[in-house]
Amino acid sequence: MRVLGIDPGLTASGYGIVDVNGRREALTEAGVIRPGGRELSARLRRLHQAITEVLEEWQPEVVVIEEVYSKYRHPRTAILMAHARGVICMAAGTAEREVVHYGASEVRRALTGNGRASERQVREMVCRRLGIGSHRGDDHAYDALALALCHAGRARAAAARPLMTSEAAR
Amino acid sequence: MRVLGIDPGLTASGYGIVDVNGRREALTEAGVIRPGGRELSARLRRLHQAITEVLEEWQPEVVVIEEVYSKYRHPRTAILMAHARGVICMAAGTAEREVVHYGASEVRRALTGNGRASERQVREMVCRRLGIGSHRGDDHAYDALALALCHAGRARAAAARPLMTSEAAR
Repeated sequence: MRVLGIDPGLTASGYGIVDVNGRREALTEAGVIRPGGRELSARLRRLHQAITEVLEEWQPEVVVIEEVYSKYRHPRTAILMAHARGVICMAAGTAEREVVHYGASEVRRALTGNGRASERQVREMVCRRLGIGSHRGDDHAYDALALALCHAGRARAAAARPLMTSEAAR
Repeated sequence: MRVLGIDPGLTASGYGIVDVNGRREALTEAGVIRPGGRELSARLRRLHQAITEVLEEWQPEVVVIEEVYSKYRHPRTAILMAHARGVICMAAGTAEREVVHYGASEVRRALTGNGRASERQVREMVCRRLGIGSHRGDDHAYDALALALCHAGRARAAAARPLMTSEAAR
């Protein structure tokens, strides 16, 4: 299963693609989209275009988009972020991909066991699970990979799994 | 000048087209878009499609979109509304139209002289200025027309206008 995680933002959106095969998780590509420009409408258009290109190039089965919290510290930022999230959601819908939403604390808990874990701790777990090094300054890309890994874990948990099997039954 | 006003919403978005010619303002079309469906991505796609069709059919020069307030009473609603606003903004940008943003209280003040005027009072002024009757239940469409009329007034005010002319100078 190929999962695309997206950390939406108007200035910078992170994206991270992870290929999941049973318990094996491998990094495919991760990066940051910076649409630039002053006009909101032009930025949204560029963001939509860039996400559409990622979807076309990598054909992920699932798109995981981080939720925008209504209790965000800066409501104005949250509202601008939601504009970005709107066009990202739409791009995923147009590409007919399954769209899944997780909140930030849900992702932190899935990766570290603690919903209030630090950014650094989450990144540490992303690097461990994917067997990659940590590159400074790519926060959004790591957040996106964390979203993809959170979904990979959920998908595994959702599949039927025996808790224990009697040796005698084999 | 043809102005398209849009009151963005995920459940219902109002749109209203006004043709402005000097001081003459005439209603061209107004309505409500209800994208329906459960999935956020599909709703956003349908909303984008409907707005694109309105833009193509009526070719407005300016698109006026109501701002989403960060101090909205219901932050969750504001964030969902911002998703809708994102795809509407994008549609206007793709159509290469000028995009203008006004806040709700700015619109109320422009139409009635009072930023805290009631919904009913604003609607009354919309009906008077356009010489139309009031139809119940089309709140979003009237809000959209109010946005278009707010911009019409601004555009007139921005144009050079003599305050007084001396008869002797003629």
